[in-house]
Amino acid sequence: MRFDVVTLFPDFFHSPLNSGIVGRALQKKIAEVNFVNPRDFAFDKHHRVDDEPYGGGVGMLLKPEPIFAAVESLPQLPQRDIILMTPQGQPMNQPLFRELASDYEQLVLVCGHYEGIDERIREHLVTREVSLGDFILTCGEIPALALMNGVMRLLPGTIGKADSLKAESFETELLDYPQYTKPAVFRGWEVPPVLRSGHHAAIAQWRKEQQMKRTQERRPDLWEEWKRNQ
Amino acid sequence: MRFDVVTLFPDFFHSPLNSGIVGRALQKKIAEVNFVNPRDFAFDKHHRVDDEPYGGGVGMLLKPEPIFAAVESLPQLPQRDIILMTPQGQPMNQPLFRELASDYEQLVLVCGHYEGIDERIREHLVTREVSLGDFILTCGEIPALALMNGVMRLLPGTIGKADSLKAESFETELLDYPQYTKPAVFRGWEVPPVLRSGHHAAIAQWRKEQQMKRTQERRPDLWEEWKRNQ
Repeated sequence: MRFDVVTLFPDFFHSPLNSGIVGRALQKKIAEVNFVNPRDFAFDKHHRVDDEPYGGGVGMLLKPEPIFAAVESLPQLPQRDIILMTPQGQPMNQPLFRELASDYEQLVLVCGHYEGIDERIREHLVTREVSLGDFILTCGEIPALALMNGVMRLLPGTIGKADSLKAESFETELLDYPQYTKPAVFRGWEVPPVLRSGHHAAIAQWRKEQQMKRTQERRPDLWEEWKRNQ
Repeated sequence: MRFDVVTLFPDFFHSPLNSGIVGRALQKKIAEVNFVNPRDFAFDKHHRVDDEPYGGGVGMLLKPEPIFAAVESLPQLPQRDIILMTPQGQPMNQPLFRELASDYEQLVLVCGHYEGIDERIREHLVTREVSLGDFILTCGEIPALALMNGVMRLLPGTIGKADSLKAESFETELLDYPQYTKPAVFRGWEVPPVLRSGHHAAIAQWRKEQQMKRTQERRPDLWEEWKRNQ
């Protein structure tokens, strides 16, 4: 998988992409990440990447030309998606990550900045808009990092087979069950006896009950969706 | 605001916290970020931070002792919240960021890793659980980064007054309106004439209509919520 990140701040990504599981996936060439900076494509006489909004209002917007030129400078693989990171996009979720990991070989991630971007980028350049959540961050770099992490994690070879199996249980639309490791008693708080019983059927039943209970209590929205799908 | 990040990978945060608006806020001492590594508090004879789950299953869990010891090593300010980053927590949103920015002076962020954490950390140590979204990442460091960015952005002095005003319009529970900057015509695509008309009332009305239309089309969930609150 090839990622191309269109960003005014490529340095932002240095340490996160050299850390942990994602760092190892990049070393193993399971994915590659390239950066392209719109500032290198600001060809007007003042080399500006941003300007004031038409119609008034505060804050600066990213101009269309440098973003178009940056994206158009990239090599183009046959299965390519150009994704704008924006609070107005479709919310990121696991089905989206699965689709991106399986159906594409190149993901171009356009990171917004300042107060917004020129609408013509949205209308005529990108093929998808994705939101990290219903909140405001100072930059699109964090959403791009989350998307790359979630997609890379699903590429074959990134995480071990055993971990993958476990991961699938996370993907059942129910929240995970409580988990315990050693010590059996910590500060007087004991691991539930059923988990130390060795009865596999009882353990599986307890875990399923806990998943249902926890989802019902914490996320009524997911619970209703799960019930509909049964 | 003091942030304490409990993480096995403190290096992860280096470049994002030195970049852009957040980097400047930290330089200006509007906030400070400290790191504490549970590995420095793994006092058993093998210095382990993780172990296998009781009841079977694949993957490793973070053990309780090093996490408790790491958090207990921190100085404690009067208004403190200890937040676990987990897909099972309350979803991050703007009201949560506002609450954290206004009501606390110390936020301790516990980053999960491996396949999960011992339940006793959840039950007896943390005071809140927060989720970045309904998807799976390889680590809790990205959610911690998002939370710090969204909260720091709201602290007085991080962003200019003008930008703050604009930001408030984002916080109206409607998606933002389309924005345009120069050039007036780019590749034949024209900025809507109303935005160049100079009629402030007409511009304000067009923007409000666009916000409503866009929210209705893209996010029926937000649209229903907005209508209920009118």
